[in-house]
Amino acid sequence: MKISARNIIKGTVVSVDKGATTAHVKIEITPGQVVTSSITNEAVDSLKLVVGGPAYAVIKASDVMIAVD
Amino acid sequence: MKISARNIIKGTVVSVDKGATTAHVKIEITPGQVVTSSITNEAVDSLKLVVGGPAYAVIKASDVMIAVD
Amino acid sequence: MKISARNIIKGTVVSVDKGATTAHVKIEITPGQVVTSSITNEAVDSLKLVVGGPAYAVIKASDVMIAVD
Amino acid sequence: MKISARNIIKGTVVSVDKGATTAHVKIEITPGQVVTSSITNEAVDSLKLVVGGPAYAVIKASDVMIAVD
Amino acid sequence: MKISARNIIKGTVVSVDKGATTAHVKIEITPGQVVTSSITNEAVDSLKLVVGGPAYAVIKASDVMIAVD
Amino acid sequence: MKISARNIIKGTVVSVDKGATTAHVKIEITPGQVVTSSITNEAVDSLKLVVGGPAYAVIKASDVMIAVD
Repeated sequence: MKISARNIIKGTVVSVDKGATTAHVKIEITPGQVVTSSITNEAVDSLKLVVGGPAYAVIKASDVMIAVD
Repeated sequence: MKISARNIIKGTVVSVDKGATTAHVKIEITPGQVVTSSITNEAVDSLKLVVGGPAYAVIKASDVMIAVD
Repeated sequence: MKISARNIIKGTVVSVDKGATTAHVKIEITPGQVVTSSITNEAVDSLKLVVGGPAYAVIKASDVMIAVD
Repeated sequence: MKISARNIIKGTVVSVDKGATTAHVKIEITPGQVVTSSITNEAVDSLKLVVGGPAYAVIKASDVMIAVD
Repeated sequence: MKISARNIIKGTVVSVDKGATTAHVKIEITPGQVVTSSITNEAVDSLKLVVGGPAYAVIKASDVMIAVD
Repeated sequence: MKISARNIIKGTVVSVDKGATTAHVKIEITPGQVVTSSITNEAVDSLKLVVGGPAYAVIKASDVMIAVD
């Protein structure tokens, strides 16, 4: 499947924290740079996400803001 | 200002493409890894974004999806 | 690629309207039920979207609201 | 109330799963096609959502991605 | 129609700027406090938005970030 | 830090409700007008949000919908 989302960043799962319905998954995309994602517990199970496994962070361009110092 | 968004990734602006109302800004966060952002033209002007300048991509955790091969 | 987004709805592209930077793509998911998407022109080109072709609408669960009469 | 969101899809509530703060609500929009929504528990109570009741999935066009095989 | 979005803020339309496909609409919610919205041109037409008219800004709770100084 | 998000609204924290992973934070932006935000527990801790303290609601323009009666 090829998706319109412009940002697909490869990394490694460094943590999976399931809550009551919502999970937080962290992916290291370069040494020291971690991306945090909030997804459903259901998605964690469906994708069989485990710490140490490969994964992509996928982000729609309209969800990316820009900041400057 | 400190923001709740969990993802703040430093990079360099590599392109600014203004449309009629909406601009696309690309930021290189590591060599070869570019993040695309869709923001208002107004924000581009307000932040004085220019190619080659430093900038951050800022993304709320609930806007990050995860994918696996 | 398998994605965490909980909503992946099959349909047929019924219109592609490219603006200066942002395109609107409409997908018919059942007879008479059309889903409207706003994506980058770049994504339209990358996915080679054409009217009459098959496509999926993909939506993260946290972007779906509920309403009642 | 009339809203700018371009996607308002009628269906029937098939499940309501409340977590600590966040609920997952599933709506069947056509036989076999279910849409999953993540909303606040507070909204579930406010809308008096119950399994079997009618409801709409409401989605802003800029939150809809497109994918192809 | 009653919606799950937790934030519905009444105001007055102070500008409507249509681009090629995407419009920016500004609503004054209290004297001097303006909210900017990016929606489709199609929605502007459908809602018949005009400067000076009443309107609501509607925002899903999961799209609101918090910041501190 | 200066951000592209067009909506930065000053207020006072009136409640912080932490769930298993996701918190709901309410900010009063004018007397009687409260904005509800859904963010990670981690962000609540990082920003040291407490009831009665000052805070901003920050919203990207593309996440604001418009409604009319």
